[in-house]
Amino acid sequence: MPKGFSANGIACGIKKTGKLDLALFYSGLTAKASCMFTTNSIQAAPIQVDKRYLRSNKGFRAIIVNSGNANAFLGKEGLGSAQEMTKVTAGELRVMKENILVASTGVIGKSFPIIKIKGAVPELVQGLSCQGIDRAKRAIMTTDKFAKEFTAVFNIGKSKITVCGIAKGAGMIAPNMATMLVFIFTDANITQGALDRALKMAVDNSFNCITVDGCMSTNDTVALMANHAAENKMIDTHSHFALFFQALDAVCLELAKMIVRDGEGATKFIRIKVEGAKDYGEAKKIALNIANSNLFKTAMFASSANVLGRIAAAAGASGIDIKEKDLKIKFTPLAEKEVDISVFVGKGNSSAVIYTSDLTHEYVKINAEYN
Amino acid sequence: MPKGFSANGIACGIKKTGKLDLALFYSGLTAKASCMFTTNSIQAAPIQVDKRYLRSNKGFRAIIVNSGNANAFLGKEGLGSAQEMTKVTAGELRVMKENILVASTGVIGKSFPIIKIKGAVPELVQGLSCQGIDRAKRAIMTTDKFAKEFTAVFNIGKSKITVCGIAKGAGMIAPNMATMLVFIFTDANITQGALDRALKMAVDNSFNCITVDGCMSTNDTVALMANHAAENKMIDTHSHFALFFQALDAVCLELAKMIVRDGEGATKFIRIKVEGAKDYGEAKKIALNIANSNLFKTAMFASSANVLGRIAAAAGASGIDIKEKDLKIKFTPLAEKEVDISVFVGKGNSSAVIYTSDLTHEYVKINAEYN
Repeated sequence: MPKGFSANGIACGIKKTGKLDLALFYSGLTAKASCMFTTNSIQAAPIQVDKRYLRSNKGFRAIIVNSGNANAFLGKEGLGSAQEMTKVTAGELRVMKENILVASTGVIGKSFPIIKIKGAVPELVQGLSCQGIDRAKRAIMTTDKFAKEFTAVFNIGKSKITVCGIAKGAGMIAPNMATMLVFIFTDANITQGALDRALKMAVDNSFNCITVDGCMSTNDTVALMANHAAENKMIDTHSHFALFFQALDAVCLELAKMIVRDGEGATKFIRIKVEGAKDYGEAKKIALNIANSNLFKTAMFASSANVLGRIAAAAGASGIDIKEKDLKIKFTPLAEKEVDISVFVGKGNSSAVIYTSDLTHEYVKINAEYN
Repeated sequence: MPKGFSANGIACGIKKTGKLDLALFYSGLTAKASCMFTTNSIQAAPIQVDKRYLRSNKGFRAIIVNSGNANAFLGKEGLGSAQEMTKVTAGELRVMKENILVASTGVIGKSFPIIKIKGAVPELVQGLSCQGIDRAKRAIMTTDKFAKEFTAVFNIGKSKITVCGIAKGAGMIAPNMATMLVFIFTDANITQGALDRALKMAVDNSFNCITVDGCMSTNDTVALMANHAAENKMIDTHSHFALFFQALDAVCLELAKMIVRDGEGATKFIRIKVEGAKDYGEAKKIALNIANSNLFKTAMFASSANVLGRIAAAAGASGIDIKEKDLKIKFTPLAEKEVDISVFVGKGNSSAVIYTSDLTHEYVKINAEYN
């Protein structure tokens, strides 16, 4: 982990299997934080608490995360539980509750096991260590087949700066309601404005360009903490911003691709590039409409040549006016595990790339058969 | 069939299985026609030809339809083939090509078997009969498990008026690209304005309120012919309109429900009613977002209680602002074959109903395994 950070992950009994289900990320120095949340109008309780703390902006010291229960759609009770998680953690760390961020993933609308979590926090804090990230990244997993971590390192003068991210996939699986959680830690010394701007740009390039099944969770969260432990010359939007952004962007894009590769039941990694659009928004809308078409996704699973017509139909159904004579579609061999699709719409000079996976028997099985 | 109409269906060799694949519907009297087409910006060649003929509006005598090939995304060649179908049929029936409507359903982007169709038209015309609708309705089927027909009858004075519709389901299956074809015939004497208005209203209430997988075809067509053979007092938008609309509305709604029941791999018929919205558009958008959520559809397949959270998440992801405290969700027992879902959003007094089906292993199998 970057300088000054430690982490831990334990099993507190939320998951019936006894697997790790509670994680803590801690910074010895007070850090700046920047977050992006789901735009779903039903937002999980932890997101509501985080937003309040981010507004008061008293500096951040830790993020506590549980898997197995989303703490969503539970009304005031859920809100109370999310606050309680920050309060107990703050007490144990001897900081204010406003210094703690919180996230949850799991079943929506199911009574939240706050007692189990409260009881486990002392052990969670006691076990914090630099190596703890290995346990922490497993504790946020649900149906992910592999833990997701990516680190980028760069220098400003003699200061080595690390940006380390971990993610829990949009496994698109019950009980996880497709939640994507991403936590990124850096020891960079950076202004709040530069931090916010870099995060927004990087998320737009990465997590906002992937889709597994088009479903948006109530819990999606990307949280970034920067604790200035690298003691570099301050990064702002004018100085060294490009270096920091490049590192953050790489971390986000690699994590996003890992999430797609680990998509529920996915057997293929598909890159859809739409070119020749009037603007980026138009290109992205067409690419997303293709990526979210079940007919397209099942044809990809089968490596079927029918995919050509299905791409044309999905592009045409995107709401963007496309002329049949201008529409050119190309793809690399369909039988491969990685397929590049290129769609040219002949309207202008803008392009967009979307990453997605196929739709398989396994997707239906995973999502239907959870009890 | 209504007075003055006849039909036929034959096998001309487009389907390799030797099943019926070419249908003709014929009116002895020149009829008015009203049509609604897919809003996909990539439109199949037959739709482009129909639109041209509808603009010239020289009266209509027949509709020729093939299954097994969509005649879509084929450029000028496809357009030529669609025109050729109307020309050959017109020649055989001794009318103008502009009196003939045409429709196709099947694989997109695959060379169109116009030679086979041209060769079969004489036999198709020779076999026209009042009972021929039974063969015709099978000739437009692709992966439909059952043929779809519904008839409504009403009186104006002493005139008995019949409205008879047949449909080919949005089976959402390769090679059909989810095409929905609906042909409705009536012997009513009605003005063009009343015919157009009734069709638009009925389609908005029915075919525009169903979704199997959210994919929009390049070929979707609803065509209505009215040949005034019932000799009733003219229906216009002021006189007897409600009676005619009611009959047409019933035919459209029943056919639409049959299409959902026969959705690819569907095991459940689901009715989603959203109430308490600000306006109809908002209610429909929320209901459609739930109906098209793969997570919702797989939970329905499994009769899983997780469906509650998935409905909440899909409603919240619809882009309509909904307050968690106002959102009330109810459903009838999930294990039944028919499930009613009621979602109250607490914003106003408008409501909308959407019909849909579940997402099953069978859907993936059908859509992936076609060669």
